[in-house]
Amino acid sequence: MILNASIALDAQAITRCIRRIAREVAEHHGGINNLVLIGIIRRGANLADRIAILLNEDGRPPVPVGTLDISSYRDDSKGVLGDPRLLGRDIPFPLEDRRVVLIDDVLYTGRTVRAALAALADLGRPQSVELAVLVDRGERELPIRADYVGKNIAAPPGQRVYVKLSEIDGVDAVLVGEQKPEAASGRDRAKA
Amino acid sequence: MILNASIALDAQAITRCIRRIAREVAEHHGGINNLVLIGIIRRGANLADRIAILLNEDGRPPVPVGTLDISSYRDDSKGVLGDPRLLGRDIPFPLEDRRVVLIDDVLYTGRTVRAALAALADLGRPQSVELAVLVDRGERELPIRADYVGKNIAAPPGQRVYVKLSEIDGVDAVLVGEQKPEAASGRDRAKA
Repeated sequence: MILNASIALDAQAITRCIRRIAREVAEHHGGINNLVLIGIIRRGANLADRIAILLNEDGRPPVPVGTLDISSYRDDSKGVLGDPRLLGRDIPFPLEDRRVVLIDDVLYTGRTVRAALAALADLGRPQSVELAVLVDRGERELPIRADYVGKNIAAPPGQRVYVKLSEIDGVDAVLVGEQKPEAASGRDRAKA
Repeated sequence: MILNASIALDAQAITRCIRRIAREVAEHHGGINNLVLIGIIRRGANLADRIAILLNEDGRPPVPVGTLDISSYRDDSKGVLGDPRLLGRDIPFPLEDRRVVLIDDVLYTGRTVRAALAALADLGRPQSVELAVLVDRGERELPIRADYVGKNIAAPPGQRVYVKLSEIDGVDAVLVGEQKPEAASGRDRAKA
């Protein structure tokens, strides 16, 4: 349940953001022969799929897409704030010497990305790892930055940014609203 | 041995950079009651000591200083490029709920910092981790950024940035020069 929600991005705006990110990734990586996309589950994975399709549309070779499943930092079993950790991964290709674009829906504290970078480092030595996010809401707690940002959205204190994607939510929208923690569950919660 | 070296920062310039970083850290953290500094060995640790002294000079309470020892990414025993890893640490205080400023001499690929962030996450959950570096030479391979930068120095391809500090090298200087790998040894090498 999101209270007093306002729409920060509608479906058209989200489509524009994703197209721009795909274009910037394509420009930056030229031939993109060694490019791979890694989406952070859940909505980062959907965004990665959409970006891969856009990269393909111009006749470019298919870009492999993998996923990382990183826990929310509120998921600690003792009820204590803990840092996010890797829950699982689906990356059926080597990362060695690949250029990775890591993709998430919201960049906030940076702790989810830190856990993702640790997971990627355990899997080999990619040539580089860049970060693409649909929304950067600022208020970082770690020295992490995104290379590709759909939209910067500053949410007032006590409010959260919610990304809704049609694959999961039946609609594309980015909402800003008051958080009602008891109604959130598992990895659907806004990520750290 | 550094060939064809040019001086990018002299002793006075280094002192100014460190003073500015200390001032910015003090301003950003106000009362700095829960501030701690973690220097990356070797020269990041010397920089951390100098910044701690400057923070103290105005009668502020002493700021705890710890160190992390992170391998160079060329240190892999198989002679293969591997990511940096934690070799050791000296952090004799809890990080829980502390504001950490991680300090290194040169920020380059970001891989050393990534390893340091992983090491810090293993030690508890600091409230935040910021990054301060004397030199940012760009050419990042990971989505890492510094919060406090002494000086941005773009080194031409094939050249390296060498930070010399009086505690170790008998002189304060930042040099840019051609790299002569066979003359470098262990952790004195320019870090990733």
